[in-house]
Amino acid sequence: MQNFDFSNPTRIVFGEGVIAKLGKLLPETAQVLIVVGGSSAEKNGTLAEVRAALGARRHATFAGIEPNPTLETSMRAVAQFQQGGFDFLLAVGGGSVIDAVKFIAAAVRLPGADAAAAWELVRKGGRGVAQAAPLGVVLTLPATGSEMNNGGVLTNAAEGAKLPFSSRLLFPQFALLDPTKTYTLPTRQLANGVVDAFVHTMEQYLTYPVDARVQDRFAEGLLQTLIEIGPRVVASGTPDYADRANLVWSATLALNGLIGAGVPQDWATHMIGHELTALYGIDHARTLAVVLPAMMDARREQKHAKLLQYAERVWGITEGSEEGRINAAITQTRNFFEGLGVPTRLSAYDLGAEAVDAAVAQLEKHGMVALSEHRDIDAAKAREILGLAI
Amino acid sequence: MQNFDFSNPTRIVFGEGVIAKLGKLLPETAQVLIVVGGSSAEKNGTLAEVRAALGARRHATFAGIEPNPTLETSMRAVAQFQQGGFDFLLAVGGGSVIDAVKFIAAAVRLPGADAAAAWELVRKGGRGVAQAAPLGVVLTLPATGSEMNNGGVLTNAAEGAKLPFSSRLLFPQFALLDPTKTYTLPTRQLANGVVDAFVHTMEQYLTYPVDARVQDRFAEGLLQTLIEIGPRVVASGTPDYADRANLVWSATLALNGLIGAGVPQDWATHMIGHELTALYGIDHARTLAVVLPAMMDARREQKHAKLLQYAERVWGITEGSEEGRINAAITQTRNFFEGLGVPTRLSAYDLGAEAVDAAVAQLEKHGMVALSEHRDIDAAKAREILGLAI
Repeated sequence: MQNFDFSNPTRIVFGEGVIAKLGKLLPETAQVLIVVGGSSAEKNGTLAEVRAALGARRHATFAGIEPNPTLETSMRAVAQFQQGGFDFLLAVGGGSVIDAVKFIAAAVRLPGADAAAAWELVRKGGRGVAQAAPLGVVLTLPATGSEMNNGGVLTNAAEGAKLPFSSRLLFPQFALLDPTKTYTLPTRQLANGVVDAFVHTMEQYLTYPVDARVQDRFAEGLLQTLIEIGPRVVASGTPDYADRANLVWSATLALNGLIGAGVPQDWATHMIGHELTALYGIDHARTLAVVLPAMMDARREQKHAKLLQYAERVWGITEGSEEGRINAAITQTRNFFEGLGVPTRLSAYDLGAEAVDAAVAQLEKHGMVALSEHRDIDAAKAREILGLAI
Repeated sequence: MQNFDFSNPTRIVFGEGVIAKLGKLLPETAQVLIVVGGSSAEKNGTLAEVRAALGARRHATFAGIEPNPTLETSMRAVAQFQQGGFDFLLAVGGGSVIDAVKFIAAAVRLPGADAAAAWELVRKGGRGVAQAAPLGVVLTLPATGSEMNNGGVLTNAAEGAKLPFSSRLLFPQFALLDPTKTYTLPTRQLANGVVDAFVHTMEQYLTYPVDARVQDRFAEGLLQTLIEIGPRVVASGTPDYADRANLVWSATLALNGLIGAGVPQDWATHMIGHELTALYGIDHARTLAVVLPAMMDARREQKHAKLLQYAERVWGITEGSEEGRINAAITQTRNFFEGLGVPTRLSAYDLGAEAVDAAVAQLEKHGMVALSEHRDIDAAKAREILGLAI
């Protein structure tokens, strides 16, 4: 096991109807700026529930955070927070809204609504964050795990940059997780959530062994759970509460820092996937489903021991040669994603060799030339991986 | 999955040599009362490491916390803290020291060193704790998980009472976990630690199914890990760092609230075991090893589905009738404990039917007549269970 430093103070309140508990989690005097994405939270009644739970507390709503949240939009929320004299931020939504609210929480503590100074916080990865407004979360879309971690990703549209940031000051104080809030999600978003949580887990698991037995078992438990419930979650018919609850809690635990503490981490699939989203607008999770199977194939030597462990413990593959078992595990992974309606080939998006060229060029432009747990994926290796993804 | 409310803000700093990081975790102006048990922390150099890491900070040491920490001893530490003008408590030890420090942290915030008022906090289970001094932990004995939770157990020797307490204010701010600190532990304490962590996990796992898949997988992962490393940890020879690291992290995660969130919990084995410790001075973990196999046997109907799941997933038992698989799982559990040198029968302590009578009388006296996840273990049922443990 590697050395680690882990903490996560976010309070999770979980179950059907928990939005009603919001009032107990906030000071009586809190002045709350609610931040949402599109119109679904308003339409499906979640915002009405939130407002009712706030009781007599003064509040207003900022709507319009985009799927890949931008500096430009977020700064409008910063101005509303500052000018309106609010003192608490409440994200109602999924990863994009929560990520934006983390940025807003840091930016409102800078004088004025100064976009340049605020972007500088992101550019430094969050290291410059010295203060932050308190924030809470009402989760409506399980996928990114942002509801229980201290990181986010923000896009500067003017500069064409999309950067991650994190700070110990940006953990949500609380997150309310009501599995029934997923009942109105489109199948596509549910499938994306399953894939996102699955690949988050794999990025922290499928590296090389360091005899971190608990972390491995926990990661395998999340993968097994997602494999069990994923197909049922995306099937038509009446939503099953237990399946949704297991999906929500799996997605949260996949990226709250616990399974990644004390082990090597990869994240090359994410970095390559980000370029496909930026170039072609493919949903984040869908880019991961394209890259991961190719990554497993191309990195079978570096990931040999963990691929065999994954094959045996997650998929029950124990027969055949080592290469045969690894091939079978990759095929099972591919079939799992495809079974959720999520393609695993660039060709499904009518993309081919030209997309490989474009993505590799973007990776080089962004300095992403030393990826993976070994920092040994350069442009040539990325080209090979993407080639296998066509 | 059941509804739950989970949070755990304790920061874990894990690895060889982490005591040196103590200085970075404390304010420069902290005035630290170090609290220890016997003389081992002084003898084996851990206290010297701690004092060196405190640098120029004013500090003193309170020594003498007992294995089952008492109100009487703890109040002497309260007086030293108050009279000495200290503002931070540092527990250096295992569960007993940490539990005592949690009590001390609450008691020092009451005026004077008032034992009666302080005991009242414990008597109310910690609900009356309105303030607490900040506390940190240097762990030297993996077993109880107290380093990353907000609970403790205190004994009032004068009243002959031993009661649990907890409060959101009593989480350690940090816990430093250095696996090499376990190298000097006697085999008996290591074996006890393995059994304690194992039974903590079982109390939160072996109940009835609520389709909490991640919690089940995580619990099974802890059990599998303890089964893998336990025999090696207690074997003679050079300690293995990875085994010790896995033991320390398993014991912490077995009782930090995570695997118990959203599932039924039992704890009858603990309640019955407590009486055996009180009556006969048997080590806490050793009482659990006596009670648990009998509990599994006597409760095979109520725990039927989970016993089968445990048999299959933890021990790989898939052949035979349901009763046969359950029997095999109980035998495996018993053999696991015995293989660690921990007896699983009262007779190993020269106890028989008279001990059953005495323990049942104590349970009735303490009002422990509605135990288990179903609250259906009364005195008669406890007698049956203890009878199977002879």
